[in-house]
Amino acid sequence: MIIVLKPGATQAEIDHVVEKIQAAGCTPHLSRGVQRTIIGAIGDETVIRNLPLEILPGVDQVLPIMKPYKLVSREFKPEPSVLGAGSVLFGGKRLHIIAGPCAVEGREMLLATARAVAAAGATALRGGAFKPRTSPYAFQGLGEEALGLLAEARHRFGLPFVAEVLDPRHVELVAGYADLIRIGARNMSNFPLLAELGRQPKPVMLKRGFTATVEEWLSAAEYIYKEGNHHIVLCERGIRTFETQTRNTLDISAVPVVQALSHLPVMVDPSHSGGRRSLVAPLTLAALAVGADGVLIDVHPAPETALVDGPQAILPAEFAELMDRVRAVAAALGR
Amino acid sequence: MIIVLKPGATQAEIDHVVEKIQAAGCTPHLSRGVQRTIIGAIGDETVIRNLPLEILPGVDQVLPIMKPYKLVSREFKPEPSVLGAGSVLFGGKRLHIIAGPCAVEGREMLLATARAVAAAGATALRGGAFKPRTSPYAFQGLGEEALGLLAEARHRFGLPFVAEVLDPRHVELVAGYADLIRIGARNMSNFPLLAELGRQPKPVMLKRGFTATVEEWLSAAEYIYKEGNHHIVLCERGIRTFETQTRNTLDISAVPVVQALSHLPVMVDPSHSGGRRSLVAPLTLAALAVGADGVLIDVHPAPETALVDGPQAILPAEFAELMDRVRAVAAALGR
Amino acid sequence: MIIVLKPGATQAEIDHVVEKIQAAGCTPHLSRGVQRTIIGAIGDETVIRNLPLEILPGVDQVLPIMKPYKLVSREFKPEPSVLGAGSVLFGGKRLHIIAGPCAVEGREMLLATARAVAAAGATALRGGAFKPRTSPYAFQGLGEEALGLLAEARHRFGLPFVAEVLDPRHVELVAGYADLIRIGARNMSNFPLLAELGRQPKPVMLKRGFTATVEEWLSAAEYIYKEGNHHIVLCERGIRTFETQTRNTLDISAVPVVQALSHLPVMVDPSHSGGRRSLVAPLTLAALAVGADGVLIDVHPAPETALVDGPQAILPAEFAELMDRVRAVAAALGR
Amino acid sequence: MIIVLKPGATQAEIDHVVEKIQAAGCTPHLSRGVQRTIIGAIGDETVIRNLPLEILPGVDQVLPIMKPYKLVSREFKPEPSVLGAGSVLFGGKRLHIIAGPCAVEGREMLLATARAVAAAGATALRGGAFKPRTSPYAFQGLGEEALGLLAEARHRFGLPFVAEVLDPRHVELVAGYADLIRIGARNMSNFPLLAELGRQPKPVMLKRGFTATVEEWLSAAEYIYKEGNHHIVLCERGIRTFETQTRNTLDISAVPVVQALSHLPVMVDPSHSGGRRSLVAPLTLAALAVGADGVLIDVHPAPETALVDGPQAILPAEFAELMDRVRAVAAALGR
Repeated sequence: MIIVLKPGATQAEIDHVVEKIQAAGCTPHLSRGVQRTIIGAIGDETVIRNLPLEILPGVDQVLPIMKPYKLVSREFKPEPSVLGAGSVLFGGKRLHIIAGPCAVEGREMLLATARAVAAAGATALRGGAFKPRTSPYAFQGLGEEALGLLAEARHRFGLPFVAEVLDPRHVELVAGYADLIRIGARNMSNFPLLAELGRQPKPVMLKRGFTATVEEWLSAAEYIYKEGNHHIVLCERGIRTFETQTRNTLDISAVPVVQALSHLPVMVDPSHSGGRRSLVAPLTLAALAVGADGVLIDVHPAPETALVDGPQAILPAEFAELMDRVRAVAAALGR
Repeated sequence: MIIVLKPGATQAEIDHVVEKIQAAGCTPHLSRGVQRTIIGAIGDETVIRNLPLEILPGVDQVLPIMKPYKLVSREFKPEPSVLGAGSVLFGGKRLHIIAGPCAVEGREMLLATARAVAAAGATALRGGAFKPRTSPYAFQGLGEEALGLLAEARHRFGLPFVAEVLDPRHVELVAGYADLIRIGARNMSNFPLLAELGRQPKPVMLKRGFTATVEEWLSAAEYIYKEGNHHIVLCERGIRTFETQTRNTLDISAVPVVQALSHLPVMVDPSHSGGRRSLVAPLTLAALAVGADGVLIDVHPAPETALVDGPQAILPAEFAELMDRVRAVAAALGR
Repeated sequence: MIIVLKPGATQAEIDHVVEKIQAAGCTPHLSRGVQRTIIGAIGDETVIRNLPLEILPGVDQVLPIMKPYKLVSREFKPEPSVLGAGSVLFGGKRLHIIAGPCAVEGREMLLATARAVAAAGATALRGGAFKPRTSPYAFQGLGEEALGLLAEARHRFGLPFVAEVLDPRHVELVAGYADLIRIGARNMSNFPLLAELGRQPKPVMLKRGFTATVEEWLSAAEYIYKEGNHHIVLCERGIRTFETQTRNTLDISAVPVVQALSHLPVMVDPSHSGGRRSLVAPLTLAALAVGADGVLIDVHPAPETALVDGPQAILPAEFAELMDRVRAVAAALGR
Repeated sequence: MIIVLKPGATQAEIDHVVEKIQAAGCTPHLSRGVQRTIIGAIGDETVIRNLPLEILPGVDQVLPIMKPYKLVSREFKPEPSVLGAGSVLFGGKRLHIIAGPCAVEGREMLLATARAVAAAGATALRGGAFKPRTSPYAFQGLGEEALGLLAEARHRFGLPFVAEVLDPRHVELVAGYADLIRIGARNMSNFPLLAELGRQPKPVMLKRGFTATVEEWLSAAEYIYKEGNHHIVLCERGIRTFETQTRNTLDISAVPVVQALSHLPVMVDPSHSGGRRSLVAPLTLAALAVGADGVLIDVHPAPETALVDGPQAILPAEFAELMDRVRAVAAALGR
């Protein structure tokens, strides 16, 4: 932490800042310039961060130099993390294509989709059992029934599956079925839910909140990691901006940015970020080219009848065609 | 819902859209222009909204004309709602000044603050028992102990209090103590929590998510209202923008916008939106001038030692001085 | 400027940074911590800012501590600036209410509006001669004819007027007529235009770009100031955010923020920020309560027929009624 | 244009809207639903757009259904535009890699860079002669001298070049040298400059304003097109969001979105969007994978000494290495 004092700060003001830093168990380090004095506070920055130094008399600015997360950072663990979810390993050279319906609407549609995406080369299945919906009048998911159907699809087609959890009271239930538990964008800062997922053994996919900075996203991952669960996959899914042509603005740069800051694998969701069927293929290829570890794609056998997010789902046949292009680009990228 | 067809849409495509609308129990209404055909879908828009009409062949745009919320709208209930929290009524002509520490850190600091804000004319007390913190290493609140201290302060100084709840499993606990239960910005889209609060009798203060549109905020209020709890106060507390001089950007216009759309009372939080002590007074006066029903102010007897959000807390003496200006402006506004 | 080195930075890397700072004529100041070395670069920060220090080997972060503007800052000139435009002084205790049509559409409508706003107590007249329009098919203003009409209105009703300039080739023309020259939001970063206005004597109103940070806004003012024109009034008019209920989001906090950073007076435009007639009155009162030096209000005798921005113009009668409320609030604020 | 009336709109209010539409030379088309009446206004939407229909009594919402641009749209010209700049054609299957220094700082550095990027396979040269700088104290470019040096580099290495123009008074000068004239992000809404470029024959590269919606960007292109210059290349370069890890947020989805809406070719600038050297390679590959027609890359022989934007420039050797990866991915994409 660096504390920049105002041009005319008095000695008493400087001494007061120095005492506060010492009282927090840290070491102050003064640099007196012609115009200003600067104080570096050396020590546990998690302690110093919580000191309200900016309101001390004579203080102009407080500049943090440490990141608010530790365990998920490259400094803590330089080599990339590898983690298993069912039969699948995340974090290695292999690209992961997780596909399936946004919401499980019934047995038939799920099995048809699962069969199709397995045949086309998907590595895991997605399917919502509990759906967070902006409107209280919208379809909220089939709950445990959907989890049972996803387990059946896993058994029949050999694909591990990812399912979302919304409520800390459902963690045990979802963990009893799913191979990978997803925290949706709206729950990225639901700290009781993060803590609950940190205390159970199943791997977690943490989607970025559509309003979260990269730093907040990694801090959310830290909540899970700190509780003991180190099996975390990140997933970028678009941020909220002023542009309305797309549902959200896919922050493609966040992938290499996060890879430089953290050892956790990073996926991209081209379906929910764009919100349009026609954008799924180009955004999938862009995600792989930028270096993501995989993508999460909405596939629905009849998007016209989908109860959730139909406009962004692609057909099984479109998915199969996209997989051909994915393989060509992956080969060119050496993956 | 209005469906605009592409310039060259065929009769078969038009018929297909018409059938979809009819199958959803709604009535289609065609307008054929020289260049385009437009179809109005008359009926229950909550049903039509979930139809993925934009992906039907020949469809260019789908324009919703109804709002995604109903019960909290002015159309549903034209007169302003009035609700009681402890001895206080929200929604009438009276301005509410809720003040107190961001987090309850101990008995002494809470009672000192409560005594001071009561003396200066605050109408209710605020104080955090459970704190949502971006960093897992930050102070998380004293929990039930803090609720007990707030109840003691209520008893001694006659101020009802508002406290935040983060976890659906704590709703009963917090409702057992607080007069008004607050849902913080990070939990505005925590639907299980909203539903839980909708099923208990205590009034709820719903803060706007810092990334939520007004429409999403009112939809979140609808979740609570729909479950049976009609006692809701809204609170604007700044949205996330590119500007970094303030913690968030106070969306002052949202107050009259919401008042035109909804019958619920609206407060403003000048402390958390600005994130700076020096902004509390001007933003408080601006909030009252724009027509808010009140403000929520962080007051701390020693902000230098505050464990949470010290930089934005004002001193009891500053609060008393601000209250004098509040009274002058309120009189000029006829409140 | 503070340069934070990476944990394992070598002595050679540190020496290289030190040399770069010295080569730029600045003095390096080293602080070696247990984990990291930090270097303060003391000297002319406008020189250091342009050094690409962040790409030197071993460098982790570069933290500027000086602001990118000087002459418009409070450090440079602590007392508030006062400047005259025609018969009006900006920057003192008096509130300024500048009112008139967004665009001058003809003689009759202009004179009618000017007469009405003068009678109601406006201190200056606004009226567009050259209009920047997003669509090339929209009305672009009457040009010099409008300037002549504004001068006629000034003569008849005793109100100085403000008019916008879009093109550096029109500066002389507009300066020949107007009392105050306005730079619109879209041109805040039009540096040739800023420089041209800095080289002529008429005072300038600089609107904030709807995407500009406060720091960029003050840097734009610095362009004008540096060329020799010190008569600048700032005007906040809303920033672009994700919220679509209003045309832009009025950043009301920017007023006290700018007042703390700069000695220049600050106005607010409640008409263009909200984009709706119903928001003009509440946002005007909020602007005054937050401490702005005045407001800029669109008034049109027949908004239904307005060629530009009709939806946000208020009627002369509404303006007169608003002026009564303005006077009451101003008195309560001691202005 | 669709006008949605309020639930209780009277016949007189409906008639008034109908008259306004007819007075504008358009045809009203009424649909009476059970709850609401909806009026479609058929005719020249550029006329109707400028009517302030939303303020007529009884009107609830006005929904535009036509886009604010015409000539640059796919509806106007379904096939992709192809245009030549010097010896290079934009808009075909070929990918364009335009590389060079952000600013021309001198003869030697320019020729060295041009030689290197030509050898590595760049298709055109970039180099700034006039630089728009946020700070008035920063290097503003060498002006005409730089244009002469760029022309020399063109002659020696066979690369056409693109240069920026900031001031309408410099258009003739820049057009006398450059093969492609660039309008930078800050000038996307500088309408006098757009109009000037529309009236001269050299092709134009229009960068997206970092705060501009796709619709505003295409409207800016319309300004140029409408004046008679149909040779326009668009360039996405990142938008302003709340994320601070990157200089701007590259809106990669804008590429396929614009390609669906417009016939103009679209490039991407991975250097200025990310603002960091390490992001140039991944964002370049992502841009090609998403379907862009090419990229614009900052290359500098000694970024440590660059006067402008050094942190984002890559070295000639890094550029050559990137070109190998570009060729591999381009082949996989069939380009």
